[in-house]
Amino acid sequence: MSRNIKAIISQMSLEEKASLCSGLDFWHTRGIERLGIPSIMVTDGPHGLRKQKEGSDHLGIFDSVPATCFPSAVGLASTWNKELINQVGVALGEESQAEEVAVLLGPGANIKRSPLCGRNFEYFSEDPYLSSEMAASHINGVQSQGVGTSLKHFAANNQEHRRMSTDAIIDERTLREIYLASFEGAVKKAQPWTVMSAYNKVNGEYASENHHLLNDILKDEWGFEGFVVSDWGGVNERADALSAGLELEMPASNGIGEQKIIEAVKNGKLSEEKLDRAVERFLNIIFKAVDNKKSNAVYDIEAHHRLAREVARESMVLLKNEDSILPMKKEGKIAVIGEFAKIPRYQGGGSSHIKPTKLDNILEEIEKSAGKNTNVLFAKGYELESDEVNSHLISEAKVTAAGADTVILFVGLPDRYESEGYDRQHLHLPENHVQLIEDIAEVNSNIIVVLSNGAPIEMPWISKVQGLLEGYLGGQALGGAIADLLFGDANPSGKLAETFPMQLSDNPSFLNFPGEEDLVEYKEGIFVGYRYYDKKRIEPLFPFGFGLSYTHFEYSKLSLSKKQIEESEHVTVTLNVKNAGNEAGKETVQLYVRDVESSVIRPEKELKGFEKVELQPGEEKVVTFLLDKQAFAYYSVKLKDWHVETGEFEILIGKSSKEIVLKDNVFVQSSVSIKKPVHRNTTIGDLMTDPILAPFAKELLEKMNNPVGDAAPSDGLGTELMEAMMKYMPLRALVNFSQGAMTEEMLSGIIQQLNEQLDKEME
Amino acid sequence: MSRNIKAIISQMSLEEKASLCSGLDFWHTRGIERLGIPSIMVTDGPHGLRKQKEGSDHLGIFDSVPATCFPSAVGLASTWNKELINQVGVALGEESQAEEVAVLLGPGANIKRSPLCGRNFEYFSEDPYLSSEMAASHINGVQSQGVGTSLKHFAANNQEHRRMSTDAIIDERTLREIYLASFEGAVKKAQPWTVMSAYNKVNGEYASENHHLLNDILKDEWGFEGFVVSDWGGVNERADALSAGLELEMPASNGIGEQKIIEAVKNGKLSEEKLDRAVERFLNIIFKAVDNKKSNAVYDIEAHHRLAREVARESMVLLKNEDSILPMKKEGKIAVIGEFAKIPRYQGGGSSHIKPTKLDNILEEIEKSAGKNTNVLFAKGYELESDEVNSHLISEAKVTAAGADTVILFVGLPDRYESEGYDRQHLHLPENHVQLIEDIAEVNSNIIVVLSNGAPIEMPWISKVQGLLEGYLGGQALGGAIADLLFGDANPSGKLAETFPMQLSDNPSFLNFPGEEDLVEYKEGIFVGYRYYDKKRIEPLFPFGFGLSYTHFEYSKLSLSKKQIEESEHVTVTLNVKNAGNEAGKETVQLYVRDVESSVIRPEKELKGFEKVELQPGEEKVVTFLLDKQAFAYYSVKLKDWHVETGEFEILIGKSSKEIVLKDNVFVQSSVSIKKPVHRNTTIGDLMTDPILAPFAKELLEKMNNPVGDAAPSDGLGTELMEAMMKYMPLRALVNFSQGAMTEEMLSGIIQQLNEQLDKEME
Repeated sequence: MSRNIKAIISQMSLEEKASLCSGLDFWHTRGIERLGIPSIMVTDGPHGLRKQKEGSDHLGIFDSVPATCFPSAVGLASTWNKELINQVGVALGEESQAEEVAVLLGPGANIKRSPLCGRNFEYFSEDPYLSSEMAASHINGVQSQGVGTSLKHFAANNQEHRRMSTDAIIDERTLREIYLASFEGAVKKAQPWTVMSAYNKVNGEYASENHHLLNDILKDEWGFEGFVVSDWGGVNERADALSAGLELEMPASNGIGEQKIIEAVKNGKLSEEKLDRAVERFLNIIFKAVDNKKSNAVYDIEAHHRLAREVARESMVLLKNEDSILPMKKEGKIAVIGEFAKIPRYQGGGSSHIKPTKLDNILEEIEKSAGKNTNVLFAKGYELESDEVNSHLISEAKVTAAGADTVILFVGLPDRYESEGYDRQHLHLPENHVQLIEDIAEVNSNIIVVLSNGAPIEMPWISKVQGLLEGYLGGQALGGAIADLLFGDANPSGKLAETFPMQLSDNPSFLNFPGEEDLVEYKEGIFVGYRYYDKKRIEPLFPFGFGLSYTHFEYSKLSLSKKQIEESEHVTVTLNVKNAGNEAGKETVQLYVRDVESSVIRPEKELKGFEKVELQPGEEKVVTFLLDKQAFAYYSVKLKDWHVETGEFEILIGKSSKEIVLKDNVFVQSSVSIKKPVHRNTTIGDLMTDPILAPFAKELLEKMNNPVGDAAPSDGLGTELMEAMMKYMPLRALVNFSQGAMTEEMLSGIIQQLNEQLDKEME
Repeated sequence: MSRNIKAIISQMSLEEKASLCSGLDFWHTRGIERLGIPSIMVTDGPHGLRKQKEGSDHLGIFDSVPATCFPSAVGLASTWNKELINQVGVALGEESQAEEVAVLLGPGANIKRSPLCGRNFEYFSEDPYLSSEMAASHINGVQSQGVGTSLKHFAANNQEHRRMSTDAIIDERTLREIYLASFEGAVKKAQPWTVMSAYNKVNGEYASENHHLLNDILKDEWGFEGFVVSDWGGVNERADALSAGLELEMPASNGIGEQKIIEAVKNGKLSEEKLDRAVERFLNIIFKAVDNKKSNAVYDIEAHHRLAREVARESMVLLKNEDSILPMKKEGKIAVIGEFAKIPRYQGGGSSHIKPTKLDNILEEIEKSAGKNTNVLFAKGYELESDEVNSHLISEAKVTAAGADTVILFVGLPDRYESEGYDRQHLHLPENHVQLIEDIAEVNSNIIVVLSNGAPIEMPWISKVQGLLEGYLGGQALGGAIADLLFGDANPSGKLAETFPMQLSDNPSFLNFPGEEDLVEYKEGIFVGYRYYDKKRIEPLFPFGFGLSYTHFEYSKLSLSKKQIEESEHVTVTLNVKNAGNEAGKETVQLYVRDVESSVIRPEKELKGFEKVELQPGEEKVVTFLLDKQAFAYYSVKLKDWHVETGEFEILIGKSSKEIVLKDNVFVQSSVSIKKPVHRNTTIGDLMTDPILAPFAKELLEKMNNPVGDAAPSDGLGTELMEAMMKYMPLRALVNFSQGAMTEEMLSGIIQQLNEQLDKEME
């Protein structure tokens, strides 16, 4: 329905306009009845709907209506399956319509800077490209159903520790290439209806009051068309926030927020035009929600549960499979050990915690899949409420394990370990889980560990187990999915969207996480995740992009459409992938780009493409990638723009970030050169290697005495030293070393001449 | 002789004053005859005199008079022997007097940020305490002879790459605790006559124009009494440099420098008072030199050579001694392999490169020590001029080695690898040296490697050799010293003053060294050297402070004079060290301090004391350390001062940084607390843990509704989340969450009350 929103706004009083800029209550926006502006409902996401029942606590924490619980974002990302994430989005959209929810508060695109961050399970990846692709697929899915999303938490909310007061100090290039890039791709590809600002400060300003982030970058540069909503309770000074680009404060502020806006307009600190534009952005989305609302929508609970199971299967990552212990045969004696098999850990704590429509019991699903020729035993092994070793439970488990052909050991992180609100202090499993693994390993040497956790753990015990399935937080259908994978009814195809370090201290943020008091400095810069492990040559426990399958894939015939391109052109990369094993399976082909030589510090390689393909045994498919400028660019702080430096780039095709199997080169010609004016401290070496200036500089310098030309190397002082001295010498030194042959005036003249030459050639 | 320097200055014209602020030529200051101001000579150091002969090249690089070549600074530091370094200083002072040199240009106290820095051999350590102690001993030794020193290169000249133009970006705390601390201790303990400013920029300003470094810190804070001289050619704008605290520009500037000063005074940009003060500082030192000049001074070349040998013995570090292959017996067949045995590498390239009074031939010294019962064979193994493997030389060496009982293999870095002027690109030995080691290891399993190098190398071959002596750059008497150590005529006692990493990429500066264009960011912060390897739990090849002996030492009876002190008090630490072996030897006892808990990021431990003791077999001595505030303090950027945080500190006594053998605790009570005013974003958790505010805050908050008190945990949302939400909640949120029970005005009132309470208690 078409409306003249400007006309509607023109009928509003200042008070009415201001009133729209805060929520009605915890979950609703405000309306204005006389102008036909309705109130809409927003609720937590992102891997399921958390719609609170009427009359619950005023903080909006407890008691929500049932909804399908899909795997957490960490699992969604591990599928590397954009189409499947889109389907999850569609399902979430359907459930939102059925529950009359207009905007789902998610997905989260924060980067996993440290594995300690309590909310990592809600985020996708350590890599901004993968994260933004996943977020875009999620958003496009939800929004295809006429339901909005809220891409969160913008930006740099990479820890829970002091999240409402800490100030994240991040240099502009790192912000752009890592932390914002994860949002940039999603905004540009999927236009979320809303973006949620983060609690924390970024470079000295609250994210909710950050003009640079909200207005300059998000809206002006990226073209975001929706409105910005605060994280709940995340507004500091309401008028400043509005001025900086935050349209909606949530939740309700008891009239305080609107009063501050009214005062600011009245005393001239905030222009009414700014308020009008905020209301316009807000109303555009409100009416979009109204227009897209479906009456009497319902959804198919069973179908969504099946989808949750399919997604869970692809989200789990097979990390170890010694002597092909997996898949298991449906026969003999199987010992299932660990309380998680009966009381699964399937989602994380906090605002994303939902009430599932149903919930698999893992043990029962295993029994179902195992069939009647198999004897499935169970022992509890530990208690969930405590970390303390219970020797009685362990003894019992050892007896159970001793008599079995294979042990499936369910361990991981209990609820209290991972939640919104606080970070972990270490990467250990609870002591009683570790002890269980070690004791079971004494009585059985066929152990498959299935992990339930939302983020990496250290595994000092890994050599004692033969199989390892990272189940992450698999959602309500995790049990069926695990059974499918263990018995080979499905073939594992998940790959890690994050690096598992050997030890916490290997993580790049370790020295500066979570910071001092209210300051956290991102001193590792762009070296986040595999970018760091690659460059520092630190062996991870499991690398980014890694995951095993029951079949194996062969890569061949890498081909580039061009060997040399202008930066405005595309290059098409194709290769063949073949299923060379005996099981059907899916493989995620990863494309990384490496800048062979650069004048700025760059990672060894960066993910710039990935495709998941399904292949029957013996089947071969062509995989195609299209690379544009963004695949080769870094963010130039000088240019305030993405920049490609002319030169060779390697296209690396990998099964993981560590296993590169094919490579080829492309030469990219930039359309922009960064001008470097000559000044008195320009070095002679720089002049001599500047393609434009070198000939002129040489001529000019030849007119002078070569200042070090007479001194012949001797005394063990090599030509290397003489060359280095000349190379690093600033032009000003010519005046001193020329014994009067060059004056300051002559030098100024030369510098002027060189700059004129530069201007001429770069026009 | 007492002079009225102010009166002398009052007789000078502006032109005369300005003239004194630049050199006369490459090596002399200017004088003014009519006022009895002489010209004095300064020459390169620091491990020997590089006095250029008259009439050499005008760049001052080649052809110097003979002088004793002591081990380079890296070796001096490895002795950990303050008394011995002082003796070297005395010898250098004697040689300076004999050569009529008034100021020796050294020592260098730059920190070894990266092992790649081409000039590391001229610097002492990665640790500022060790470095400053060594520098102070050196300075005190030289200056005891009436000869000045020039502590260099102030500051942050930690790389040669683009050293004349690069800008070192270092946060204030890191600058103070690491890079300046190395100078601070030396200035305070030894008052060098001059300090030499570095070529590079520090945080945007050339070191030579850096008011913060030269005036605020060096002179005002530290009380430096001498004058600042530029590194040669290191002045950018002369008047700015003078204004920033640089008194003397070197070398001569053909009148340009003085002209700029005159102009600046005339046009009012520089006050004549500032110039007067500069001249006063300059003349104080000139006359000090004049008054301390010894006529007809001579020195004992042989005695200095013997001292050089003694120092060399203590500078070398025994790194590996499998099956006690060392010391060698003086019998049988010994194969000496490697060209270095005949043409030793004994010093580094650049301004410190001197002409020795004599030079040991290592092979001859070995033959001499080995005696007539030993058959010493020799093979060249490689050529020094090239890195290429010479298979003929290797075959020859293999034949020689095959017939020997033991092989002594001399390898290392040829001259061209390490010099002032440029950095290394990697930590490899030349290919022909590595190949030689590997091929010799095929024919003989009793290999002792002796290394000649100025900084760490990677050693992928280390498992193939049984003995490893780090000879560093041992000066002119290295041959005798090596022979002494190999045959046990002396017992190794050197310990590493730097970490040897397994691989270059393990180094803390690796991601940001040597920077981009003219910018190098010290993003590793205070985590330099062992501070980084400790915290990151990265296993080094050899840790800081490590070195073996032919005997072994037992530590016991650690005792602290007090278990609790005020920060103004001292604590005396004593322990016993016993030589429990059968050889006389020297041991360096290292004392590290660890802050058990801190609100700021701190290293695991920091070196705060060391003592070298000599012990006969069975002998036991008491070692005593006196610790003051500085041993416990970090540099507080908020206070702009060193600060001790009240709490427990561990006193760690180690044989190396990795081998801590004794520990005890002391509680230090600070005299300063850092005031943290309450504001609307102060978190409730911070209030509740503030010793002063907690009771008041509790009372005030109790008057309100506890904002989250009603919500009982359920739905798998634990008490941890509720507690964390409360802890991290800013005060301002009380207004929003209190449902109207608290207004903005009430909050302001509470904040004011709390701040008043704070003011009252902290008065």
